[in-house]
Amino acid sequence: MKKCSEQSLTDLGTRVRRARLAKGYSQDDFAERCGLHRTYIGSIERGERNFTVLNLIKIAKALDTSVGDLFGDKTSSDQE
Amino acid sequence: MKKCSEQSLTDLGTRVRRARLAKGYSQDDFAERCGLHRTYIGSIERGERNFTVLNLIKIAKALDTSVGDLFGDKTSSDQE
Repeated sequence: MKKCSEQSLTDLGTRVRRARLAKGYSQDDFAERCGLHRTYIGSIERGERNFTVLNLIKIAKALDTSVGDLFGDKTSSDQE
Repeated sequence: MKKCSEQSLTDLGTRVRRARLAKGYSQDDFAERCGLHRTYIGSIERGERNFTVLNLIKIAKALDTSVGDLFGDKTSSDQE
């Protein structure tokens, strides 16, 4: 059974990956848009990295989404 | 002029502080609820710390709010 924190990172990584693929970005392309290294993006998507708030903001911006969406928060867009 | 990243941390810290005060928690009380040190909470509220995603989740949980709310995302609760 995964620890709660590990599950949180895994869920977050899965949402980042899903959003990246929905945008049609490769990991290389996406890493460049974020200003981060491709291997770093890979470890985030696998839920292996407890990354920082500033990198979270970079990732949300590069995906043109909100941080709340990356955490699966119910937002107004879910109401439409 | 603050760098964009510094401003992001300052804005986030201000929202954490506002939410903590709205709950009526002292920094000591809140730190204990988060499982973090009081001085760590203080540095977050002052926007001095680029803290991690797992600590962000702990803080949102202790405030009984969503991560999106801490980032000022427009959520369904803003619609009511």
